[in-house]
Amino acid sequence: MKKIFLIIALSAFVLPGNVTYAQNPRRALTGRQLAAMFPPGVKSPECNPDGTVTFRFQAENASVVELNCQMFDKNKAMTKDEKGLWSITVTPPAPDIYPYCFVVDGIQVTDPNNVLIFPNENFKNSLVDVRGPAPDFQDMQDVPHGKISYRYYHSVILGFDRPMCVYTPAGYDPKGKEKYPVLYLIHGMTDTYETWFRVGRINMILDNLIARGLAKKMIVIMPYANPYPEMMRRGVARRQDVMGTDIFTKEILEEVIPFIEKNYRVRPDAGSRAIAGFSLGGRQSLACGLGNPDTFHYVCAFAPAVFGDEVSTNFDNGIYAKPSVISSRLKLMWLCCGTSDFLYQASLVLHQSLQERGIEHKTMFPGGGHTWMNCRDYITEVAQHLFK
Amino acid sequence: MKKIFLIIALSAFVLPGNVTYAQNPRRALTGRQLAAMFPPGVKSPECNPDGTVTFRFQAENASVVELNCQMFDKNKAMTKDEKGLWSITVTPPAPDIYPYCFVVDGIQVTDPNNVLIFPNENFKNSLVDVRGPAPDFQDMQDVPHGKISYRYYHSVILGFDRPMCVYTPAGYDPKGKEKYPVLYLIHGMTDTYETWFRVGRINMILDNLIARGLAKKMIVIMPYANPYPEMMRRGVARRQDVMGTDIFTKEILEEVIPFIEKNYRVRPDAGSRAIAGFSLGGRQSLACGLGNPDTFHYVCAFAPAVFGDEVSTNFDNGIYAKPSVISSRLKLMWLCCGTSDFLYQASLVLHQSLQERGIEHKTMFPGGGHTWMNCRDYITEVAQHLFK
Repeated sequence: MKKIFLIIALSAFVLPGNVTYAQNPRRALTGRQLAAMFPPGVKSPECNPDGTVTFRFQAENASVVELNCQMFDKNKAMTKDEKGLWSITVTPPAPDIYPYCFVVDGIQVTDPNNVLIFPNENFKNSLVDVRGPAPDFQDMQDVPHGKISYRYYHSVILGFDRPMCVYTPAGYDPKGKEKYPVLYLIHGMTDTYETWFRVGRINMILDNLIARGLAKKMIVIMPYANPYPEMMRRGVARRQDVMGTDIFTKEILEEVIPFIEKNYRVRPDAGSRAIAGFSLGGRQSLACGLGNPDTFHYVCAFAPAVFGDEVSTNFDNGIYAKPSVISSRLKLMWLCCGTSDFLYQASLVLHQSLQERGIEHKTMFPGGGHTWMNCRDYITEVAQHLFK
Repeated sequence: MKKIFLIIALSAFVLPGNVTYAQNPRRALTGRQLAAMFPPGVKSPECNPDGTVTFRFQAENASVVELNCQMFDKNKAMTKDEKGLWSITVTPPAPDIYPYCFVVDGIQVTDPNNVLIFPNENFKNSLVDVRGPAPDFQDMQDVPHGKISYRYYHSVILGFDRPMCVYTPAGYDPKGKEKYPVLYLIHGMTDTYETWFRVGRINMILDNLIARGLAKKMIVIMPYANPYPEMMRRGVARRQDVMGTDIFTKEILEEVIPFIEKNYRVRPDAGSRAIAGFSLGGRQSLACGLGNPDTFHYVCAFAPAVFGDEVSTNFDNGIYAKPSVISSRLKLMWLCCGTSDFLYQASLVLHQSLQERGIEHKTMFPGGGHTWMNCRDYITEVAQHLFK
């Protein structure tokens, strides 16, 4: 960004140096030469009319290339043609958006020809968007579209600026009379504040639900629940406290909510606030939500990372409020987990602990694992019940 | 997204199947087990206190791993430790944000532990953000921050919804009295509508310039200048017309500008509209801007992809307006190109062609090549002269 050897000249000036080249246009690159420098990329992934999907990857010197895709439990071998182009055509189990990568001689590689990327701190995946004959809630449809904004707020607690994504629905009027309820939506471990937008498709799901009258118009706040990478970069933390929920809860209550309620046209009451999160975000949502039932009257956990006796401990230690207080405040609590999720047993323990304490809650235990395919189903279902 | 085997149960219901597991919390995963499943990622890239940067990549079975980084002209060999962790420590030529990837036995791989990604249709790079002792215009500083919004509009011309990124400055008030000028900012070939945000850092640059009074408050529109991937997916185009500018110009004039002027508080006059673009986006900006001098009074081209005699042809064929008309309308025209850019000679031809036609313009020919490092310098300079 340093401007070394900067020359700024008005056209009336004579240009120094090799300006004489300009007198011979033939020495300049041609469009044909440029096009040759940038050959068209390989088409991948390609969704075929028969519902199959073809993945392609150019690697003439690779020995083994496999497709690792969350459509399937195991990697699938790709085959190489005489030009070194590896490919595979597969039949997805159902239309959906699946994370995938190529495994090239054991190394995971995103698809260079696909712009859809799964934001994550510890791995890189591409996303294949397989659409069915009828559009799904997560697909862009011909309905009014809300928008996602990337915003930055200053955290006094942490001492630096923090990013967030904000969904505002179509027709949101910052100066209008209408005030909106707010869903605070938290990503999973190693995900980022972008994952609910780019993988969770929260904007498309809500656009479609709202347009059909199935969900209330709401604002969705997606903070970056993991401040540790920046804290470690600045030397104010030495390692991540992955399981801790204190910083998260403090930041949500003291900084994120006040920022949102100052800058958006929202209803500032507990009956108009929901908190939901996936995996580690589910753990954080439970701590923040069940710990502050006078702030949130809607608490949702999707495959939350809470473990065995920990639930009891959280009630005993005051991380969660007293069951009677929770029961008297909450309008709705949801617990969702796939029956193949490695956190399913933990969810059942949580479910039973809540039952034992008389905390009413709905559960959704569909098939499927610890995936964003499931996560989109959870939010699609739950969003229809919020703020009603 | 299909809800197969969906079970929704109120907590009062008895859960079917393996709910009995829940009676034994010890069968559920523990936090320690979970942590073991997700070991902390490798730290990469790491900016060291002495100004060097260390890149790391885990690949125990790879034979050769190199760093490909735009800090340097050539790849640099990385070395492997006994645990299969490859690393290299380098000294950047200057603080800046550089694209890079690892070349693992000949295959380009993004850094799995870095969330910063270069959005592109044909390759995937990570970004390393090397900050200097004093913050640069592209760095997040303690100033009021504008926001970037991801919006969608319907294109009647193309028949589908289109994405765009929109920068609004800090304090932008959609219902206030103030009206803003608008910069239409176009990405390069194979880039996307996100590239000026994520690689160009247009929001940080403008936040910092505006806070210092160096640039006017402006709104910046970043459309997706390449509709062909979606057109081909829908079968309405068979191949990309990379060099054509007709669809682009038509979409900007007939759809993007009206959408913006309907939805934002902007001044709808040519003196409050600028168009600027990089590489292929420079070509498009010249066609759209010089072709419509009653719509844009500011036209900027950064290493534009225009070639030799093409400039004359564009004037002769009416793609560009008559030089006398252009000269009487334009308030400012800029042409920027690095002297090591492969389009530098082409820029000099364009420069001379404009001079011959008496079209006044400023030029900026610094060192450097066809890079986003240069591109950020161009916009940082040019933004200070717009709408003044």
